[in-house]
Amino acid sequence: MAAGARADLSIDDLVRRAREGSPRAVARLISLVEDASPQLREVMAALAPHTGRAWVIGLTGSPGVGKSTTTSMIVSALRARDLRVGILAVDPSSPFSGGALLGDRIRMQDHVLDREVYIRSMASRGHLGGLAWSTPQALRVLDACGCDVVLVETVGVGQSEVEVARTADTTVVLLAPGMGDGVQAAKAGILEIGDVFVVNKADREGADATVRDIRGMISLGERRQAGDWRPPVVKSVASRSEGVDDVMEALDKHWDWLQSSGELGRRRHRRAADEIEALAVTALRERIGDLRSGRGLDDLAAQVVAGDLDPYTAADRLVAAVAG
Amino acid sequence: MAAGARADLSIDDLVRRAREGSPRAVARLISLVEDASPQLREVMAALAPHTGRAWVIGLTGSPGVGKSTTTSMIVSALRARDLRVGILAVDPSSPFSGGALLGDRIRMQDHVLDREVYIRSMASRGHLGGLAWSTPQALRVLDACGCDVVLVETVGVGQSEVEVARTADTTVVLLAPGMGDGVQAAKAGILEIGDVFVVNKADREGADATVRDIRGMISLGERRQAGDWRPPVVKSVASRSEGVDDVMEALDKHWDWLQSSGELGRRRHRRAADEIEALAVTALRERIGDLRSGRGLDDLAAQVVAGDLDPYTAADRLVAAVAG
Repeated sequence: MAAGARADLSIDDLVRRAREGSPRAVARLISLVEDASPQLREVMAALAPHTGRAWVIGLTGSPGVGKSTTTSMIVSALRARDLRVGILAVDPSSPFSGGALLGDRIRMQDHVLDREVYIRSMASRGHLGGLAWSTPQALRVLDACGCDVVLVETVGVGQSEVEVARTADTTVVLLAPGMGDGVQAAKAGILEIGDVFVVNKADREGADATVRDIRGMISLGERRQAGDWRPPVVKSVASRSEGVDDVMEALDKHWDWLQSSGELGRRRHRRAADEIEALAVTALRERIGDLRSGRGLDDLAAQVVAGDLDPYTAADRLVAAVAG
Repeated sequence: MAAGARADLSIDDLVRRAREGSPRAVARLISLVEDASPQLREVMAALAPHTGRAWVIGLTGSPGVGKSTTTSMIVSALRARDLRVGILAVDPSSPFSGGALLGDRIRMQDHVLDREVYIRSMASRGHLGGLAWSTPQALRVLDACGCDVVLVETVGVGQSEVEVARTADTTVVLLAPGMGDGVQAAKAGILEIGDVFVVNKADREGADATVRDIRGMISLGERRQAGDWRPPVVKSVASRSEGVDDVMEALDKHWDWLQSSGELGRRRHRRAADEIEALAVTALRERIGDLRSGRGLDDLAAQVVAGDLDPYTAADRLVAAVAG
């Protein structure tokens, strides 16, 4: 039944329904993104005129610092302002989204029945580019469908923080006392990407020390961040919604600064350039892959082995074939 | 003076002199490769007809197993057969080749004055593609300049063994007793790339146990190697040239097998295809980089931010610009 209904809907219909607030239509559009559907280009073309309005907040931190509870706390505050909110929970380590979804459902139970909140877990499905490729596009769907704010929640492992920071207007780095997070933060380079630092579980011993550590590192470190924004460090106990006002104040101040300083435009420009470049490189690599499985590269390699062709000239011909 | 002489020499003259046996001309050609000189294409085109004759032997192992002494031992044996030998010492970890050169000079003192032996240290100079890019081309220089055998010596760290294996006709994995090398070998996946295993420093305690370990792992492991070659495991004490006959016998048998089985052609074909593909990807990436620093990508990004263009259509235009 669902499949039949889907087949009947044109992309334009689907986009219209999604923009009218149908969660099912939004979910279907994100699935088209995740599955790298052949209709994806049509979807993106239909969405383009409606994008660029959402405030994208990235949230990252090590496992156990309370990312989902903090996300839930922020969502409640945004809903109290009557804003439509999208949540993308990104888990690069998991090939399936089942576990993440279950976790979301438990922690996000306050919001799961709220029609003005879209919750979606993104998991790498192993196609070219992975999450770095699908997340910005899922974001674009939620943006075009009228979300005022999109929260992108990422497990802070390795490369993923940096990718969140590239995707977001505002990047929140979550820490918790007694996890050696300060040192970890410095090591992982997340000091440089955080616009707002939240020390969660601040009822635990060592919270003030963690705040001091981070503040010290911020003032010591030569931040490569553009402009004159000095990242605030605030405390929260997200499970009891303590500190929510401080967190929201820090976020709002950053949003105001982004707009007044012109940094918002610069970040979005950079983000679009990154996305275009990544899509172009993916397309070119795919074409080379096609040639590899076909005869083209084989013939060139045979000529190089025979000494009839040097590898540069062969590469020129491969580039020409890819470019054709 | 040297600079003047170089400027006067055409690439054809340089290639002619190098092929006549001028070590200075060979060194100059390899420098053109390492520096990614604009003349590089001309060099490669001039060399192409003369390539494909050298037997390329890759030699890899952890620091301290005696790679340079083993290389020196093998070189002596090859020189006793009156063969011309090239040596490429590859050190991906060092941004400068100074240290490696000094080490070579001390250990290679038997050969450094021998005009039929070319010794060259390759170090990553940070350009696109790095050693994976410059090593096959330096190899091509030595091959075209009449080396009968080229030895490529690589520090066995991480990815580098695999790259040696891709470059070589025959890959020698060096081990030493009491270094936990067996376990390390299994972990690093070098069991799969070794055509010949040499347990060096075999006068140390535990040498026979190491030989047994490696043999056991070879028979247990499902080797993905093509054909019916079963890698021999031989012992040596390279510092005293003990075991040199066993090592040479193992190498010769592998060379014979490569030719009789047709594997030599397959490996060289694969190697050429890899090289062409890498050069093509580098060329395409450079073009995208040029566009990024120029106005092209900027204009596209501005249109995407404004919602006038979707990222896919923008990427299509970027690909078209790169391909043009």
